[in-house]
Amino acid sequence: MSKPLKVAIAGLGNVGIGVVKILEEHKELIADRAGREIAISAVSARSKDQDRGVDLSPYQWVDNAAEMADLDDVDIVVELIGGEDGIAYELSKNSLKNGKALVTANKAMVAHHGALLADMAQDAGVVLRYEAAVAGGIPIIKSIGEGLAANKLSQVYGIMNGTTNYMLTHMESRGLTYDEILAEVQELGYLEADPALDLDGIDAAHKLAILSSVAFGTKTDFESVYIEGIRNIESVDIEYGKELGYRIKLLGITKYEDGNLSQRVHPVMIDRELPIASVMDGFNAIVVDGDYIDRTFYNGRGAGEGPTASAVVADLIDIARGHSGPAFFKPASKLIEAAPVSINRRKGAYYVRLHVEDHAGVIADITAALKHTNVSVETMLQKGTEKDGTVYVVIVTHETTEVAMKDAINRIKEVSSVIETPQSIRIEKL
Amino acid sequence: MSKPLKVAIAGLGNVGIGVVKILEEHKELIADRAGREIAISAVSARSKDQDRGVDLSPYQWVDNAAEMADLDDVDIVVELIGGEDGIAYELSKNSLKNGKALVTANKAMVAHHGALLADMAQDAGVVLRYEAAVAGGIPIIKSIGEGLAANKLSQVYGIMNGTTNYMLTHMESRGLTYDEILAEVQELGYLEADPALDLDGIDAAHKLAILSSVAFGTKTDFESVYIEGIRNIESVDIEYGKELGYRIKLLGITKYEDGNLSQRVHPVMIDRELPIASVMDGFNAIVVDGDYIDRTFYNGRGAGEGPTASAVVADLIDIARGHSGPAFFKPASKLIEAAPVSINRRKGAYYVRLHVEDHAGVIADITAALKHTNVSVETMLQKGTEKDGTVYVVIVTHETTEVAMKDAINRIKEVSSVIETPQSIRIEKL
Repeated sequence: MSKPLKVAIAGLGNVGIGVVKILEEHKELIADRAGREIAISAVSARSKDQDRGVDLSPYQWVDNAAEMADLDDVDIVVELIGGEDGIAYELSKNSLKNGKALVTANKAMVAHHGALLADMAQDAGVVLRYEAAVAGGIPIIKSIGEGLAANKLSQVYGIMNGTTNYMLTHMESRGLTYDEILAEVQELGYLEADPALDLDGIDAAHKLAILSSVAFGTKTDFESVYIEGIRNIESVDIEYGKELGYRIKLLGITKYEDGNLSQRVHPVMIDRELPIASVMDGFNAIVVDGDYIDRTFYNGRGAGEGPTASAVVADLIDIARGHSGPAFFKPASKLIEAAPVSINRRKGAYYVRLHVEDHAGVIADITAALKHTNVSVETMLQKGTEKDGTVYVVIVTHETTEVAMKDAINRIKEVSSVIETPQSIRIEKL
Repeated sequence: MSKPLKVAIAGLGNVGIGVVKILEEHKELIADRAGREIAISAVSARSKDQDRGVDLSPYQWVDNAAEMADLDDVDIVVELIGGEDGIAYELSKNSLKNGKALVTANKAMVAHHGALLADMAQDAGVVLRYEAAVAGGIPIIKSIGEGLAANKLSQVYGIMNGTTNYMLTHMESRGLTYDEILAEVQELGYLEADPALDLDGIDAAHKLAILSSVAFGTKTDFESVYIEGIRNIESVDIEYGKELGYRIKLLGITKYEDGNLSQRVHPVMIDRELPIASVMDGFNAIVVDGDYIDRTFYNGRGAGEGPTASAVVADLIDIARGHSGPAFFKPASKLIEAAPVSINRRKGAYYVRLHVEDHAGVIADITAALKHTNVSVETMLQKGTEKDGTVYVVIVTHETTEVAMKDAINRIKEVSSVIETPQSIRIEKL
């Protein structure tokens, strides 16, 4: 057996501690599978004294994680600090420069700097892996980049943020309001330190940007992802969606064709019978469409100590086995600079909910606005008269364009009986 | 870029032609991803003259596939002939002996001879891969052996035969009888040349035996798989199962604990709300349970030219990339000789359907038989009186043992009013 592979772990939160636990608990199993021992040389975190439930005394303690890039006794740096820039990025760049392999769970960093890091890894002739950055419990990077490598892929979509999926699940199943479920996930500690990452769809967009590059060989382009979170979703939309046969999910969807890349994260209404519609709670699920495989579907836990640490260690085992391909599964120099496709070019149906004063002529005014922009109506429901003399009007449109829909919504806003900003949710036929 | 990887393809059925098509159509894409060109050197099949829809003239034609093991100009032999022994096995062994990598889609051969082939590959220092042998469109071998390699796995189960899943799907959705749907799949060409492979669960058992080895590092042990097919499933069972909240699926289930391996393929009743219960038609799905990932779920097309050929080419790309780990993801010499666990040790509930003469005392006789063997009843339904004075009695038991249940069934058979062999289907809580 070859000599041990020496690992430095930067960041000892849940995931870092999970990695330590797996490497200790499955030491023999991993050595058998990897063909050599994987040994921890050094660890680093902000506070040395904190009790993390595992004995870290056998490992060299490094106060300043950035210095791990310079340790002689280290083959691989595992970056679990997080954040797109700062110390995580500095450590990552220096590790690659110094000829150390880099394994990271840092979705923000890979989404923002993936192409550059891939370049650096290639120049240094070392491996860069980031399986844990997307849907921890699902080996989706490996499945797309290796398992489906024979295919020209056309689309990848899925549920990429467990916290918002948990929120939407329980708004429906327990009839909670957005504020109620938000309080619950705060209490449960499910939210990222910056809640906007979850609630505004940014975390999902980071993952989507990474998946685009893996699937299509394009340069990571987070800036071009269209992003909308779930803050505007109300219980009433979930309920009306259900009546119409839909479920609301926050999806990331990326499509590539002939140099054009469309990346978007936003709430969608989808057919309740779709397999992805039944993915509940904190689970993630990814669907991949390719020309020879048709469609494959992957489902598993998206986050948490165990699943994410499992993905990190899988990367370490791969590296120990000598797998050394380029970061995005083709030479960094050949990654494509794709043209971003604007959300305005979306075609599809829309769910629109209006809150209006219930008097004669209001429906005529609304339908006139829709007609003016050529948006045609498939279904229109008026939902009961409220005590205050206002009602909800729910519209499902036929297929139209994003531009036409935006125009229609702006015109509807001008109708004097419309008393709230209209709600509009894209209906996706996937 | 390195020099091309030279491939010989033995067997030009759907899958073989699919491989030729992918390698031609995606030549550049694959060269980018693999880091070198993958070129076909030679092809072989029984009849040279048959029109297969692709031009094979650029490639050396070999009449006797077995001779491909001796070709100088070949790095990898792709065995797509099929059959556990005969020319496929001979070619495979000789290829490995001669230092050529082997890629095969032959589930029967790997299930029967996996451990030996892995030994030979290791001795020769060459790669043996078989992603296409299990659930073509799903990269399940790679996912388990590499993606989940950080985990101690405890259970793998799933729908591993598309044809029988198609049959069960349409028996339920269209109310067809077994004979009607059998005639349809025969007509559609969905059945293996030997229909017993599908209908009697043997094909699923081949795949299960392979998955056991990948997941648990045990020697392939097809002989110990308990196998029951779907020939006894009647429409009435599907219907009553539905009433009880269950769906009937043909599952393969493998569990490993402390040196003991339980492998079984048989029809089960499962909760209709389980994700795997909604896998329809020719799709396959596999669930993997591990200590750090918890549970992951994979779903895709199980067979067909495209998905299976995609899996073959993924193996070729891996080999071109230099991935060269052992066949079952740990050294062949370390594969475990597990103790098979008999189906008799199963614990669980059972669905039992009896066809009885509808007269006083019959229920008392049946319940006496159950009581005698300590099988307790959770639900008992009597389904209408038929014109001929007979009725169905449907029983759902509480958890019991396979042995107790068999004993009970034997005693029930002796009850004179029971006019047909009792139907019994295991209920699995997964």
